[in-house]
Amino acid sequence: MNRRAFLALGGAATVLAGCEGPQPRPARPLTATQSGEPTLRWRMTSSFPRALDTLFGGAERVARRVGELTDGAWSIHVYPAGELIPSLQVLDAVQQGTVECGQTASYYYLGKDPALAFDACVPFDMTARQKTAWLLEGGGLELLNERFAAFGVRTFPAGNTGAQMGGWFRNPVTGLNDLKGLKVRVPGMGGEVMSRLGASVQNIPGGELFTALQMGAIDAAEWVGPHDDEKLGFHKVVQHYHYPGFWEPGPNLSVYVNERAWSSLPAAWKEIFRAACLETVTWMLARYDALNPPALARIRAAGVTVAPFPDEVLREARAATEAILEGHAAADEGYRKVYTSWKSFMEPSSAWLGLAELAYARFQAGGAGG
Amino acid sequence: MNRRAFLALGGAATVLAGCEGPQPRPARPLTATQSGEPTLRWRMTSSFPRALDTLFGGAERVARRVGELTDGAWSIHVYPAGELIPSLQVLDAVQQGTVECGQTASYYYLGKDPALAFDACVPFDMTARQKTAWLLEGGGLELLNERFAAFGVRTFPAGNTGAQMGGWFRNPVTGLNDLKGLKVRVPGMGGEVMSRLGASVQNIPGGELFTALQMGAIDAAEWVGPHDDEKLGFHKVVQHYHYPGFWEPGPNLSVYVNERAWSSLPAAWKEIFRAACLETVTWMLARYDALNPPALARIRAAGVTVAPFPDEVLREARAATEAILEGHAAADEGYRKVYTSWKSFMEPSSAWLGLAELAYARFQAGGAGG
Repeated sequence: MNRRAFLALGGAATVLAGCEGPQPRPARPLTATQSGEPTLRWRMTSSFPRALDTLFGGAERVARRVGELTDGAWSIHVYPAGELIPSLQVLDAVQQGTVECGQTASYYYLGKDPALAFDACVPFDMTARQKTAWLLEGGGLELLNERFAAFGVRTFPAGNTGAQMGGWFRNPVTGLNDLKGLKVRVPGMGGEVMSRLGASVQNIPGGELFTALQMGAIDAAEWVGPHDDEKLGFHKVVQHYHYPGFWEPGPNLSVYVNERAWSSLPAAWKEIFRAACLETVTWMLARYDALNPPALARIRAAGVTVAPFPDEVLREARAATEAILEGHAAADEGYRKVYTSWKSFMEPSSAWLGLAELAYARFQAGGAGG
Repeated sequence: MNRRAFLALGGAATVLAGCEGPQPRPARPLTATQSGEPTLRWRMTSSFPRALDTLFGGAERVARRVGELTDGAWSIHVYPAGELIPSLQVLDAVQQGTVECGQTASYYYLGKDPALAFDACVPFDMTARQKTAWLLEGGGLELLNERFAAFGVRTFPAGNTGAQMGGWFRNPVTGLNDLKGLKVRVPGMGGEVMSRLGASVQNIPGGELFTALQMGAIDAAEWVGPHDDEKLGFHKVVQHYHYPGFWEPGPNLSVYVNERAWSSLPAAWKEIFRAACLETVTWMLARYDALNPPALARIRAAGVTVAPFPDEVLREARAATEAILEGHAAADEGYRKVYTSWKSFMEPSSAWLGLAELAYARFQAGGAGG
């Protein structure tokens, strides 16, 4: 949406006063007006640009479904990153009530509270399936919402990319030595881990990655997976595509809602919002699973070598991750509570999913003897 | 629910005439009556008994969520297998309009149309994640609903167990020879495959399995996975628990809706029903993923040996499966259309999920070198 369209919308949209939070709502606005106009209008800002059509598409889908499930009585207008609110200020904007809700990834806010990262992912986190199970049925979401309560915000699982790729390398990574001094772009905690392995971690915005890689300013860059990576064109400048992206093995995307806006909703609309988000967890993964396979085939056809990171890289990276997490847990009781729940869910879960599920996936992938 | 309670409910519930289908509904029953009574009452019959709390729990959850999302205006009463309709007659009951909807697994009806099995699973089918992706984003659900249209029924994905276990064996399966003449209980197409491998397949209801295994009437039995199996007590009589259950690597559970009942719903309620089902896909898998790990640990602690089927068993079983599927596809153009879509989605999907997702799961399970 361009600036003009945004301004045009301003008259109809509920424009909220900066720090006063959303206005009170009628108790049961369960139907559209007689003329078919919404009785409730919300705004959702996203951390993602439109170009990340599957990530940003998750925000659009939540909004669309809220409209469909309320027969048009509740309208949510979605803004991509930067149009209304900068990409990494979604938590602030929802906290302050500038918007009623926002779509983001909670690891962006670990500077405010390192425990929030468990809502999205930390390196060597659970897979998408495990993360969803922990959040919904393992008490994870409840614990995280205790942390988010300090911001006057409530978080809802609303998407997952599945295990991401490890990224694009000018030269193949054959062992730990190949990482020493390597100029890599890996954001957040993944970058912290790479740095502990000897890499020189660069902080470069997504939009500048292709040029940085092409011009040799960096030796390696990670983004998401085949579908999103292909659009940035990395395969045109470097030839080695490594996996897995151990820093994002199953990141959960979140929708935050301002607590006062939430409490003003009628009960059925709270459940409708929850449903729209939860549906979108399934939708986003399904969408990626439909889009990534043909993108991977095209990337391979372009001559790219697709290869796993050596085991020693994964082992050292996991050890570095554990040191970081244990450090936080030792320093902060609140963090430790989330960390302990997360760890004690993941370990038996991995033992279980390492049987039938793993044996079958391995056979299916042609590696039955592996 | 006992018979008396059912009869008591009869007065309030909409009792439909056998083959006339549901009665017409008002166009927009979007709110409960002023006294808080539902304005629409449906009945859902399930193929599963209450004891399968996670499978049957899926039906209960869909009904509960429909109530919550409509603020109590739409009530669905759920009946476990046999209380209203026999377990394997859900399709018939929904088709005839005896109930408006039903929860089941579509492979129960392959005698009516073998292509319906792809809605649940065939042996060596996709994993849960792949199946959901194919149904939602790969055109699978649309193709299947063309088949279900012949029954005046519409199917909705509404649950998944994940990859099941291969079952309980008196003696370990160390190779194909161990299957020759073995008296096993594996229902449906899985049984047909086991039979082609030389096993003597027995047809025994779930409720009689424990006794049959205990008394030596059978040598092996499969059920679901640790959580459900533990309740039947198999680990008390035999000691070898094999995996994976290659006949159910990711079965989708379905909710069927009678087409006339569906078409009488207001648009928003159609979307609410769809959301309640789709949410339940995520919920059921998460619930199993929370319940199976501790059940597995208890089963192991009881001294059970948990081991994979040998590769030669999986390879032969897959070859037998392919022969069966190709036979159907050669004989029936409608089947071939579904089969071709299914196969052409699964192959590149397995290649993609065999990279980052599999490498990570393997490392997580401690088999990084495998």
